[in-house]
Amino acid sequence: MGKKKKSKKGYVVGVDLGGTKILTAVVDKKGRILSRVKRATRATSGADKIVERIVQTVHQAIQEADIPAKKVVAVGVGAPAPIDPQTGFAFQASNIPALSNFPLGERLQETLQLPVFVDNDVNVGTVGEYAWGAGRGTKDMVGIFVGTGVGGGLIVGGKLRHGFRNSAGEVGHMVVGFKDQPDEVRCGCGRRGCLEAYASRTAIERDVQAAVAAGRETLLLELMEKKGKRRITSGVLAQALEAQDPLMIEVLDRVTTYLSLLVATIANFFDPEMFVIGGGVAEALGERLIAPIRHKAPRWFIKESDAAKVCIVLAELGDDAGVLGAATIARMRLK
Amino acid sequence: MGKKKKSKKGYVVGVDLGGTKILTAVVDKKGRILSRVKRATRATSGADKIVERIVQTVHQAIQEADIPAKKVVAVGVGAPAPIDPQTGFAFQASNIPALSNFPLGERLQETLQLPVFVDNDVNVGTVGEYAWGAGRGTKDMVGIFVGTGVGGGLIVGGKLRHGFRNSAGEVGHMVVGFKDQPDEVRCGCGRRGCLEAYASRTAIERDVQAAVAAGRETLLLELMEKKGKRRITSGVLAQALEAQDPLMIEVLDRVTTYLSLLVATIANFFDPEMFVIGGGVAEALGERLIAPIRHKAPRWFIKESDAAKVCIVLAELGDDAGVLGAATIARMRLK
Repeated sequence: MGKKKKSKKGYVVGVDLGGTKILTAVVDKKGRILSRVKRATRATSGADKIVERIVQTVHQAIQEADIPAKKVVAVGVGAPAPIDPQTGFAFQASNIPALSNFPLGERLQETLQLPVFVDNDVNVGTVGEYAWGAGRGTKDMVGIFVGTGVGGGLIVGGKLRHGFRNSAGEVGHMVVGFKDQPDEVRCGCGRRGCLEAYASRTAIERDVQAAVAAGRETLLLELMEKKGKRRITSGVLAQALEAQDPLMIEVLDRVTTYLSLLVATIANFFDPEMFVIGGGVAEALGERLIAPIRHKAPRWFIKESDAAKVCIVLAELGDDAGVLGAATIARMRLK
Repeated sequence: MGKKKKSKKGYVVGVDLGGTKILTAVVDKKGRILSRVKRATRATSGADKIVERIVQTVHQAIQEADIPAKKVVAVGVGAPAPIDPQTGFAFQASNIPALSNFPLGERLQETLQLPVFVDNDVNVGTVGEYAWGAGRGTKDMVGIFVGTGVGGGLIVGGKLRHGFRNSAGEVGHMVVGFKDQPDEVRCGCGRRGCLEAYASRTAIERDVQAAVAAGRETLLLELMEKKGKRRITSGVLAQALEAQDPLMIEVLDRVTTYLSLLVATIANFFDPEMFVIGGGVAEALGERLIAPIRHKAPRWFIKESDAAKVCIVLAELGDDAGVLGAATIARMRLK
């Protein structure tokens, strides 16, 4: 979708649509952000209202960037759902149910009267890091985002790979820990052995709760209560690690082992130049998450001798990965 | 390596260099084999002798094809070793130790006075199936070859992928069965959890021996002795399955489960159009290996709904995959 004859010059607008907030930015062709607008998504308010709020952020961002509206050539959107990138149609959107099976791209394009390109948020974040973040200068890169779940994206020869059924990059559901026992930990997707069942914040919480139930002591729950949260946030994880909480150290060791397996299994199959690891957990823990992976992953590399050539790095863009990636996807697809 | 100005027309010679035999064929541009020559490798006879024997097969194949030697524009070679495809240099060649750390491509090119392109035998088999076998007409395809070990190759956008360190396609060392227990089955590569440790003929033999040691009865050993073999060959596996040997059925069920995990984990990451499964075990068992994988793999697909779109098929070329693939690689690289 999207008219192809618009100029490659000019500005694009990147929209990072999340379950709780919409971040929108005007981006120039050098990846500079000219304005940023943030609004609540109000995920329960219905598809029409959400589309309206997205459109408002786009208009407001253009206004704040102080550029002529006609110089905006396209809009890119990252959405928390599987997307058909050709049409911008959103399938199951578990964080924004109103957008499930909804023609998001089409509706935005009608309202904005601009070419609109929609893609999955993790694909969009991968493109952001590839074009403007840690992956700059590479040709083949894998993005791994560790948060509530584990998502990923795949750049091949400078292009985002969607795959034959638009499901490429689902690293969280690569099977690394299959066991025959029926009592094995299940993934949120209902299957067994998925990486996400071992290395997401959800998995960390589950392991911590189980350890506490078994009588283990930990600062984690105390820190959680202090923050008035009901969930173990990434910030709480970072604080517990800072305080050298033994349970946190133990759980993190398991998480980095499984992320190392993921990196190695991808290296042995796809052999990319770089792995960029981001997401809430990675942002909060930084090198304390990355360094152990860099150390452990090569143990499973079939060619361990030159494992050091494979870069394993922390994402650089934080919250901006979404808007920059969305803007970049729009610009790439205008070509 | 290889002069690039030779004509794309004319014939190419494909060489399938194995640990026990050399298969060489003259191939025309439509993938038709004009002649076939087979010689023993005599792997222990030293690098010079092996090169000499390869050269002899090339000359003999040209003679038997009854074509003018000057119409042969290039030679492709598949070798059982990690290869630098740019130079044709062979690293660790465990089946032909004399060729370890040996400039195979350069030496053949000097002697043959033709452009020579060398690649790993499994990559070459993948290209053969892609260009002339089960993968014809696809753009993205994964080859999985199940034999003594498990190897693979990866076609992306019609091209063989080597990866950043020439180690793409090592599907046998993707980690699918990691467990924390130290008594876990180790792979031949020394690591734990590799697919090859669960789904190769070597793994089958190990499981059968362990079951027999534990008192299980099976036709497998009897069939093996009848054939006068000291190893459980693929043919013996096929016969035992034909006879509905309960241990064979049980072991095969485990093998197809692990191969299904491999297919699914690749589908979730890379999302190719087709998986082509070949190699000695696959050739001997045919659909009795493939059908269970086709049935089980989608259980782990993150998008199970459209899993039927992903083709999982048996390789078609058998022994010809090597010579056809080698010839095709030579022709592709002449471009």
